[in-house]
Amino acid sequence: MTGTLVIAGLGPGPAVWIVPEATAAIEAATDLVGYRPYLDRIPERPGQRRHASGNRVEIARAREALTIAAQGRRVAVVSGGDPGVFAMAAAVFEAIETGEPSWRDLDITVVPGISAMQAAAARLGAPLGHDFCAISLSDNLKPWQVVERRLRAAVDGDFVIAVYNPASKARPDAIHLAFALLRGRKAPATPVAFARSVGRSDERIVLTTLEDADPSVADMSTLILIGSSETRLIARPGRTPWLLTPRSYGGGQ
Amino acid sequence: MTGTLVIAGLGPGPAVWIVPEATAAIEAATDLVGYRPYLDRIPERPGQRRHASGNRVEIARAREALTIAAQGRRVAVVSGGDPGVFAMAAAVFEAIETGEPSWRDLDITVVPGISAMQAAAARLGAPLGHDFCAISLSDNLKPWQVVERRLRAAVDGDFVIAVYNPASKARPDAIHLAFALLRGRKAPATPVAFARSVGRSDERIVLTTLEDADPSVADMSTLILIGSSETRLIARPGRTPWLLTPRSYGGGQ
Repeated sequence: MTGTLVIAGLGPGPAVWIVPEATAAIEAATDLVGYRPYLDRIPERPGQRRHASGNRVEIARAREALTIAAQGRRVAVVSGGDPGVFAMAAAVFEAIETGEPSWRDLDITVVPGISAMQAAAARLGAPLGHDFCAISLSDNLKPWQVVERRLRAAVDGDFVIAVYNPASKARPDAIHLAFALLRGRKAPATPVAFARSVGRSDERIVLTTLEDADPSVADMSTLILIGSSETRLIARPGRTPWLLTPRSYGGGQ
Repeated sequence: MTGTLVIAGLGPGPAVWIVPEATAAIEAATDLVGYRPYLDRIPERPGQRRHASGNRVEIARAREALTIAAQGRRVAVVSGGDPGVFAMAAAVFEAIETGEPSWRDLDITVVPGISAMQAAAARLGAPLGHDFCAISLSDNLKPWQVVERRLRAAVDGDFVIAVYNPASKARPDAIHLAFALLRGRKAPATPVAFARSVGRSDERIVLTTLEDADPSVADMSTLILIGSSETRLIARPGRTPWLLTPRSYGGGQ
């Protein structure tokens, strides 16, 4: 079987944040497979086939990509962010796990990319400068108790918390429940940032505190960062403060 | 004050994983500041000054960069990985916090990059496909009790765990203590990967289990991934299995 499949990420949006390996894989592909808005960001190339799909059909999309690759073609699955972080890589390997045995012989490459928490962190300063965790609220395949358990653990460990996919249609109250849990366990002055569409024309960043945060500003394009007990602001005259989680812990220098 | 400072990451090593914004910032800089081995990866440019430094002097390096930028120059601080993740961004903002008030007027940009856990995940399959945390063992500014607290919390939350900087000279037993803690709390068959220098000529990946892992294979170029209870292998005939943490939890499909 000579087909190849590359899972490549477009990062959060702008071309300047796409790694060259992803660009090259997309250019070299005979077939592009992806969520339609991601494919729409890629210039058309003569002879290159496009297989666009809607949202929330990740496994079907992965199966389609594997089927095409198994026909001997060079397929690029186009993902947002880093395909490895809450994105298409897991869907492809899940599809392989339950799919055609021959798919396991395919030559499959995952190309890493910039994930939303990294873009948000870059804009804000250095909020991920120390230990952190990433939790997705979107997945309606995950029992709510698991989300609660992870949020509690993230507080117990005093991690900086990156919340992905805060506004699921299947679970619209999730972000409000999550904030209620966090407010009962963390200091009211804990810095919180809502970073929407970072790097795109509709970028919007709200820097606030756990006490004052309005979780309803978060949509599916928003990444939320919640500080640890060490995360703090650095004031700047006339500009938004920087957000810093220092490398030391407990006041050590 | 017209000086600018860009904090740009080279990713884990290969040029194909450096985002174009970082490449452009490095090319446009009048002055490059960084740990010597990172600067050595960058082609020399006529007229561009280099300020190389040794390891473990991050704050001094950050102060030097800020001092040069405050003289009106275009400075690029060159970091490994993603500058925002256990790298130079936090050091620069810490230096600003305690440094010259005028440094807060500087135009400072953080450019996100590919961090070691992402490169490791890409090589292995999709181990970061669901909730995860990142913990650094290197920092001798962090009390060991904080590391233990975070490892316990990571187990309680059943996160996939990415361990950065596992082999600190200041704390050589750290990785052994960490594995002892994890072995007392997680299933012996939990997948564990040691991913060393991913993307470079000396890349070496060891895929094993918590029970069989030999923590002494980890050096400062190694990123360790420890699975959640859902992380599993996908066998391939004649090749290393893929590692998958599925998007669903608790057997849901």
